[in-house]
Amino acid sequence: MSTEKKPRTMREKAAVLVNHPAFTYTVLTIIIINAIIVGIETYPGVYEANRDTFFLADRILIWIFTIEIALRMYAAKPFTSFFKGAWNWFDFLIVAASHVFVGAHFVTVLRVLRVLRVLRMISVIPSLRRLVDALLMTIPALGNILILMSIIFYIFAVIGTMLYADIAPEYFGNLELSLLTLFQVVTLESWASGVMRPIFAEDPWSWIYFVAFVLVGTFVVFNLFIGVIVNNVEKANEMELPDVKADLKEDHKELAKGHEEQETDIKELRKEVAELKELLIEQNKNIKN
Amino acid sequence: MSTEKKPRTMREKAAVLVNHPAFTYTVLTIIIINAIIVGIETYPGVYEANRDTFFLADRILIWIFTIEIALRMYAAKPFTSFFKGAWNWFDFLIVAASHVFVGAHFVTVLRVLRVLRVLRMISVIPSLRRLVDALLMTIPALGNILILMSIIFYIFAVIGTMLYADIAPEYFGNLELSLLTLFQVVTLESWASGVMRPIFAEDPWSWIYFVAFVLVGTFVVFNLFIGVIVNNVEKANEMELPDVKADLKEDHKELAKGHEEQETDIKELRKEVAELKELLIEQNKNIKN
Amino acid sequence: MSTEKKPRTMREKAAVLVNHPAFTYTVLTIIIINAIIVGIETYPGVYEANRDTFFLADRILIWIFTIEIALRMYAAKPFTSFFKGAWNWFDFLIVAASHVFVGAHFVTVLRVLRVLRVLRMISVIPSLRRLVDALLMTIPALGNILILMSIIFYIFAVIGTMLYADIAPEYFGNLELSLLTLFQVVTLESWASGVMRPIFAEDPWSWIYFVAFVLVGTFVVFNLFIGVIVNNVEKANEMELPDVKADLKEDHKELAKGHEEQETDIKELRKEVAELKELLIEQNKNIKN
Amino acid sequence: MSTEKKPRTMREKAAVLVNHPAFTYTVLTIIIINAIIVGIETYPGVYEANRDTFFLADRILIWIFTIEIALRMYAAKPFTSFFKGAWNWFDFLIVAASHVFVGAHFVTVLRVLRVLRVLRMISVIPSLRRLVDALLMTIPALGNILILMSIIFYIFAVIGTMLYADIAPEYFGNLELSLLTLFQVVTLESWASGVMRPIFAEDPWSWIYFVAFVLVGTFVVFNLFIGVIVNNVEKANEMELPDVKADLKEDHKELAKGHEEQETDIKELRKEVAELKELLIEQNKNIKN
Repeated sequence: MSTEKKPRTMREKAAVLVNHPAFTYTVLTIIIINAIIVGIETYPGVYEANRDTFFLADRILIWIFTIEIALRMYAAKPFTSFFKGAWNWFDFLIVAASHVFVGAHFVTVLRVLRVLRVLRMISVIPSLRRLVDALLMTIPALGNILILMSIIFYIFAVIGTMLYADIAPEYFGNLELSLLTLFQVVTLESWASGVMRPIFAEDPWSWIYFVAFVLVGTFVVFNLFIGVIVNNVEKANEMELPDVKADLKEDHKELAKGHEEQETDIKELRKEVAELKELLIEQNKNIKN
Repeated sequence: MSTEKKPRTMREKAAVLVNHPAFTYTVLTIIIINAIIVGIETYPGVYEANRDTFFLADRILIWIFTIEIALRMYAAKPFTSFFKGAWNWFDFLIVAASHVFVGAHFVTVLRVLRVLRVLRMISVIPSLRRLVDALLMTIPALGNILILMSIIFYIFAVIGTMLYADIAPEYFGNLELSLLTLFQVVTLESWASGVMRPIFAEDPWSWIYFVAFVLVGTFVVFNLFIGVIVNNVEKANEMELPDVKADLKEDHKELAKGHEEQETDIKELRKEVAELKELLIEQNKNIKN
Repeated sequence: MSTEKKPRTMREKAAVLVNHPAFTYTVLTIIIINAIIVGIETYPGVYEANRDTFFLADRILIWIFTIEIALRMYAAKPFTSFFKGAWNWFDFLIVAASHVFVGAHFVTVLRVLRVLRVLRMISVIPSLRRLVDALLMTIPALGNILILMSIIFYIFAVIGTMLYADIAPEYFGNLELSLLTLFQVVTLESWASGVMRPIFAEDPWSWIYFVAFVLVGTFVVFNLFIGVIVNNVEKANEMELPDVKADLKEDHKELAKGHEEQETDIKELRKEVAELKELLIEQNKNIKN
Repeated sequence: MSTEKKPRTMREKAAVLVNHPAFTYTVLTIIIINAIIVGIETYPGVYEANRDTFFLADRILIWIFTIEIALRMYAAKPFTSFFKGAWNWFDFLIVAASHVFVGAHFVTVLRVLRVLRVLRMISVIPSLRRLVDALLMTIPALGNILILMSIIFYIFAVIGTMLYADIAPEYFGNLELSLLTLFQVVTLESWASGVMRPIFAEDPWSWIYFVAFVLVGTFVVFNLFIGVIVNNVEKANEMELPDVKADLKEDHKELAKGHEEQETDIKELRKEVAELKELLIEQNKNIKN
């Protein structure tokens, strides 16, 4: 891994340090400490009694993370290459935001940011990073079906608001509420007992709206899932089959090569037999003379 | 794409216009404007204050859509060929209905139609149209299982109405209500807490009815889903495997051809050797003489 | 299909009648009439006013079905061969039961039987019969996982009854109730809001029981589903791959045969060349002399 | 199966006994009796009246199981090899625990242990043991996704506790409650009607938290399932394809061998023709002389 010559410049030394497993383990440990601290903070009794300690711990943690990011930036050969990796951006923004939103006005934002730093565990552990990359990679393939889903949601939300805004204002009071309600319906949670039946009691035709949405919505969501499954199975197959094919074709090439050599041999043989014939004809002439 | 000679007749000019990407983008833009307007209309405050503006906007939109459909009809070579595409029918009916149902008596129908025009987004964007075509194509393959589902629903609905119409009239009061309730049960929504338990409190054998329906219903629905998955995986496989097979068979043909050529060569060789033999026998005669 | 000689005996005539499509369509029509009648009967107003008509209609229907079954039995060559098909048993039992349970004491049983006759639609339509056969065929392969499921259900039901019989008697009052509740929990219906939370309020450790059951139960159910999916995908694959293999092997055989022929040719050639050599040696002797 | 010489030592006799099918069936019967007894015990009426009988039955059962385990341990060749099988550990621990926790203080623990002994059915029936082994084997492959799931749960639990501890103390009162609530939400049980809507009424931004968690949570859970499906389908495919490949390659080898033999034949032929040529050249010399 490191058969390279000894690092000389500061930058090279930093790169060696940053890529060392111990560095990763240290960062991971600090992220876990961060996770434990934010967990303890949720207990009001503990938090109120040690407010200053927690504040101090957070300050220390954020500066450790800042130094870590700064080191990794410094170690990147052209300074800007650091920002080529999406996960580096992620690390940078999560730490930078903690500095930006410092102050009394953003207490909730700051606390949430402190928790979100635990997500850095994903960017630090390579196998998790690969997994999340793979999960996110399945999303673009679903682009069209997500657009279709949005159109269906929008149309049903507008119709739902039009028809049931007065009957069930807590579910269909306005467009945003309707969208939230439809999201609830598509997960099949209380779609009948909670949402439909009270409306159904007042508008006996409302079942058409809900049954139609449940059928269309779950059918599309189901096809979204199918898409991912088939995608994955295909990918798995695509890895196997072409290998087998390449292997068999290799055999065929080998066979064809043996064939060709034989062909050359047979051609040579015909040439030699032709020579024999010439010799014999010549000899015949000699004998006749 | 358009290496054809310049359009001369009005119809040809219309065809060029209608197939131009800019035309599609314009229609798409107008559909999105239509979508935004029906969205804004759901806010009663905004709507009431600008009732006339919204009415005017809708009139303008519907006439734009009418002109668009008329142009596309005019551009179709034999006039009737326009009605061969299912999506053209869809576009035509959605716009025509807006003209038919105009008037004070059909306010709700008109408003719903106005929203449904947003569905034209699907017919206008080719990739969405293909996706929906593909989704709808999976339905006929499920014909039998849908018939089976209907039989099961009907039988359970009749039995449910017979047994529980008096105990739970809001769920099993009549055949239609029972069918709706069974649809709710098959989605597993509140099937126990909402529907079964109150009935179970009065009829201790009712659990058989519900457990049987949940088992049979979800088993059939699940197999309906399996059918779609297996269908899709098969289709995906069918694309790969025959390609590989064709490729390998091509190799085999190549090998067999090489073989045949060799065979011809060897046959030639035997002929030549036979000639040599004749020559030798003749020569032998010459020598003996 | 019927190139056989004209039927002579009564039995042969019956067999021709019974296998005629028109017979099937007639039976199907009567089943549908039966279905419509049981549907109308659920409306108390209509039923009460026409009680006698409905009773008469039912009597007529049951006798038509009896004659149909009798005909099919009579048409079966060895009389007992009728009972070899599971679907024939099904038809027979459903009709026989209507005769057995006749009388005032079994009103509910009789009415349910009348509805169940609609199930005969499955046995009459061949494509539905095949579908249901296929669905039922997947069950034996799941034998082991169903046994495992039963063990898990039983253990959790006993423990649930032991622990929560006093806290929540409506859910865990006795073993049967617990089994029903666990069935509800495995469908995830109100498992938390309805079943767990009230118990959790009294026994803070009860979450272990419910979370464990939800995890284990859904994991096993999920694997049951996976089993069916993989089974089906495998079956679909097994149809494709061996075909391709057989086809390629056919090619190989063809190639090997061509090879063998060539081999024979080459062997012949060697023999001929050996003859030439002998001829030459003989000639050489002649010349030397 | 048992072509071995007659057992001589006590240990060998024990091994024969322990591996005899009758031994397995006996143990299975006793486990089923144990299962029935724990089932009957759940009926308070029966239990209270026969407390002593049940206690005695349990004592007898536990000693039978102890003897069974002791026999199997004794039969294992090196004594310690018994503890190499995970299922032996399982059997041992479940029986040992019954002895350890004996006494009045652990009544509930003892009763649960008595029920858990029914789980030994899995370790006794080989096909069930294989099934459970297969199910458990799928878990390690999901390691990464389970870690990811834990991180997501932890982050959302901390944020949920921070934001909603005061609004909904029964759901988000502390970290443990939040984790339980999130588990409920990920099963989609009453996530909206029970958990979100009351909070949503007080904090109109809370929908972001819940929709985000439902989307992320179900997406990850779904991918966890996909992983298992694809894993299984792949395994099923891996069994088929390599077989086909090996078979085809065997053919290829056969073809290549035939080829090689032919090649040798052709080489021989060329040698023979070369000899002929030499003979002819020599002869020609003879003639010329």
